[in-house]
Amino acid sequence: MFSLYNQSLALLTDLYEINMAYAYWKSEMAQDEAVFHLFFRRKPFNGGYTVAAGLENVIAFLQNWHFDPSDLEYLASFENEEGQPLYDRRFLETLSSLKFTCDVDAVQEGDVVFPYEPLIRIKGPILQAQLLETALLNFTNFATLIATKAARISQAAAGDEILEFGLRRAQGVDGAMTATRSSFIGGCTATSNTLGGKLLNIPIKGTHAHSWVMAFDSELTSFAQFAKALPDQSVFLVDTYDTLQGVKNAITVGHWLRERGKKLLGIRLDSGDLHYLSLESRKLLDAAGFQETQIYASNELDETLISDLKRQGAKIAVWGVGTHLVTGNPQPALDGVYKLAAYRKKGEEKWQYKLKLSERLTKISDPGILQVRRFQKGGAYIADALYDQMSELGSDWKIVDPFDPTRTRQLSANLKFRDLLQPIFRGGELVYQSPSLQSMQGYCKQELARFDAGIKRVYNPHAYPVGMEQTLYEQKLKLVDQIRETLL
Amino acid sequence: MFSLYNQSLALLTDLYEINMAYAYWKSEMAQDEAVFHLFFRRKPFNGGYTVAAGLENVIAFLQNWHFDPSDLEYLASFENEEGQPLYDRRFLETLSSLKFTCDVDAVQEGDVVFPYEPLIRIKGPILQAQLLETALLNFTNFATLIATKAARISQAAAGDEILEFGLRRAQGVDGAMTATRSSFIGGCTATSNTLGGKLLNIPIKGTHAHSWVMAFDSELTSFAQFAKALPDQSVFLVDTYDTLQGVKNAITVGHWLRERGKKLLGIRLDSGDLHYLSLESRKLLDAAGFQETQIYASNELDETLISDLKRQGAKIAVWGVGTHLVTGNPQPALDGVYKLAAYRKKGEEKWQYKLKLSERLTKISDPGILQVRRFQKGGAYIADALYDQMSELGSDWKIVDPFDPTRTRQLSANLKFRDLLQPIFRGGELVYQSPSLQSMQGYCKQELARFDAGIKRVYNPHAYPVGMEQTLYEQKLKLVDQIRETLL
Repeated sequence: MFSLYNQSLALLTDLYEINMAYAYWKSEMAQDEAVFHLFFRRKPFNGGYTVAAGLENVIAFLQNWHFDPSDLEYLASFENEEGQPLYDRRFLETLSSLKFTCDVDAVQEGDVVFPYEPLIRIKGPILQAQLLETALLNFTNFATLIATKAARISQAAAGDEILEFGLRRAQGVDGAMTATRSSFIGGCTATSNTLGGKLLNIPIKGTHAHSWVMAFDSELTSFAQFAKALPDQSVFLVDTYDTLQGVKNAITVGHWLRERGKKLLGIRLDSGDLHYLSLESRKLLDAAGFQETQIYASNELDETLISDLKRQGAKIAVWGVGTHLVTGNPQPALDGVYKLAAYRKKGEEKWQYKLKLSERLTKISDPGILQVRRFQKGGAYIADALYDQMSELGSDWKIVDPFDPTRTRQLSANLKFRDLLQPIFRGGELVYQSPSLQSMQGYCKQELARFDAGIKRVYNPHAYPVGMEQTLYEQKLKLVDQIRETLL
Repeated sequence: MFSLYNQSLALLTDLYEINMAYAYWKSEMAQDEAVFHLFFRRKPFNGGYTVAAGLENVIAFLQNWHFDPSDLEYLASFENEEGQPLYDRRFLETLSSLKFTCDVDAVQEGDVVFPYEPLIRIKGPILQAQLLETALLNFTNFATLIATKAARISQAAAGDEILEFGLRRAQGVDGAMTATRSSFIGGCTATSNTLGGKLLNIPIKGTHAHSWVMAFDSELTSFAQFAKALPDQSVFLVDTYDTLQGVKNAITVGHWLRERGKKLLGIRLDSGDLHYLSLESRKLLDAAGFQETQIYASNELDETLISDLKRQGAKIAVWGVGTHLVTGNPQPALDGVYKLAAYRKKGEEKWQYKLKLSERLTKISDPGILQVRRFQKGGAYIADALYDQMSELGSDWKIVDPFDPTRTRQLSANLKFRDLLQPIFRGGELVYQSPSLQSMQGYCKQELARFDAGIKRVYNPHAYPVGMEQTLYEQKLKLVDQIRETLL
């Protein structure tokens, strides 16, 4: 995706990040160190899980991060009310020679994640870490939203083929490109987006539109012409005039294809009651000896409709999913945020832990330098623990549900576990190699399989246990108390 | 936006467009002429109107439309089951020398439009017109959705300043850039998106984040440091620890600013009950003599919440709107489609009119070469008529509601009117000059003012009358009958 752009994206940021960077610089804090966590608070789509994505774009962005001369010229043009430059010239020089030197840790693309777990952790000079906030949120929020939606649709389709058809309704060019990529990670088998196929090296598929049929005097002629031109691509859209009549026309052309050693691959239903029409179409196809011809369906599909149609026994083998997948309907944004969690003055050894208070407990951020540990029993994941990497911890852990501290859980030292955050950059140098999209898709599927079926229900899923390791929980409470005292 | 991309976007299309283009070419129909209309069926957000946008991107796309050698190489790599190239080599040569030669007519950006009215009409060789479908839909659907959302928010804010703050939650880079641009057309006064400010030449604004406050030992120190660094940008975010305490700290720094001849421009509320907190904050500010300090609000705002807060008398002067604006929540896609409406064989004079049947009347497309006439009485718009530009029409018009043909309306020859579709390309040459974004914003505002207040209600708006000119309506019925007869 990133290769699409021909200019620096350093200004792809909210103005306030630049203002804060300037104010840190003016306050001689630019080199102080900060730890920020990027995390979300609510599982999208009322679902039971979330699939992380977008890291490759984050990496590409960080590797190319620089201010072009035209960016600096633009910033130099800002004036205050008296017509003086808003920013000191030396600050702009600092930006022009800025080099990325942070440590970055992140979960992998395709990882299953939960609210409050950091997807990305950035540690480094606050000037840099602050300037990166907006872009990192943009890349991560959207990609993760769509990978999650695709995973939900894949679960609903239960192994059927899913084609991502969303380009025409996507939110802009990379609204489409990122959606295509994330959909593939989450389990889509192919896309209609040809540029996506080219740049991402994933399978592309397509049928034909109503306009093809309408350009001819009859539907039958249109199918026959299409079969002649592309005998290996014979999937006919049958609902331009009358769906079941369309199926009969497809069958007629199917016989013609057979005589030439070719196959009637499929028919596509794009309107009407997909359950009824799929049963009737299946009967017609089977009766004519086209048992192998697949029924494709499209038209405002999402995980809930697919799930209902499958439960009703619809005879649909391939699902074309567009609008609702690529825009994340009905929740078009993941609510990811980027919060300061630790700070230390340049040259000091000790970190100060930080949190944001809120009336609502769910909006108080977690202090520390956090990692996520996932415990498993047999092949199955049983709980996640947020913990502070700076704490010295024993081998038996206790985790606390921060929203209901009466709920705790012991995690014995015998359990297998792994830590989710992986090193991505160290001192600004990339130390991570992204796997292929195909591997990410396989990884996501394999990871999802390790969670209980209850959390994967489309409707009313069960909640997977994610707790705070007790030391961290107590550390947070203590800090909340300290801050509240200063407010009295 | 378009300048962001460094490669041909000709493959930014569903694969089926290329397959159809190939099949037209194989069937010797590539030079036959087609008329396609791009239109939508449902007003977004249950609103009463829609604001068109995206034309400038469409123009830039069409002016740069070409297949790169790497695009053709990619298409040449497609194989059928026997390992033969899927596409004839001469077809790829046709694509490589393709020149855009169509006529394009479109409504202007900022125009108020309604379901079934063409936003774009393309007339030209079907091979070209077909290949353009997906990209044109992508550009138009999204931009129009967001311009509409922004107009709704502007109407709700009733003249207050609206800042677009959505970059971090937008659907990708140009999900953000296009949203920034469209939001401005629809009425936003500024954006936080710095790259948007640079490339679109529109005002940018920003405050600071919680992290700024948290980086200091006390909120008061943090405000004071910010004021020192950027004395002309003093808008303080007051809810990091305790909102009203935050307002008091802002006031303390406000006095310091005053002593230096500077102003406390504003405070920003970002959580809690914005109604209550704005009243309390206003009291504190006024009591301290800061009557001119503005209260900014942000946090999951949209037109419904703004409308309710204003009705309750919240003392908010500036609204920062992000996620819900830039993603078009809760309806993240406009349902725009691109339908063939007329066809003629190369060299023939007579057009064949085309339509797609459907079980649902609302999905039967309109045949002809359509234009939209908007009638006005005094300064107010009273009705739109879809008509066929090829029909010879009298001076008194009758329009029919196609979904309730018992409802008709006479439009007398004395009424003033204008036709919405403007010439954009003729024979592939651009004949239109896009106005500035500032003019589009003004135009949109002025146009909206000419519609009755009833259609602009946030909730339960009245429906503006859009009918089919009677000749067109009868033409459509006749064609429906003709097609249905062939199906018997």
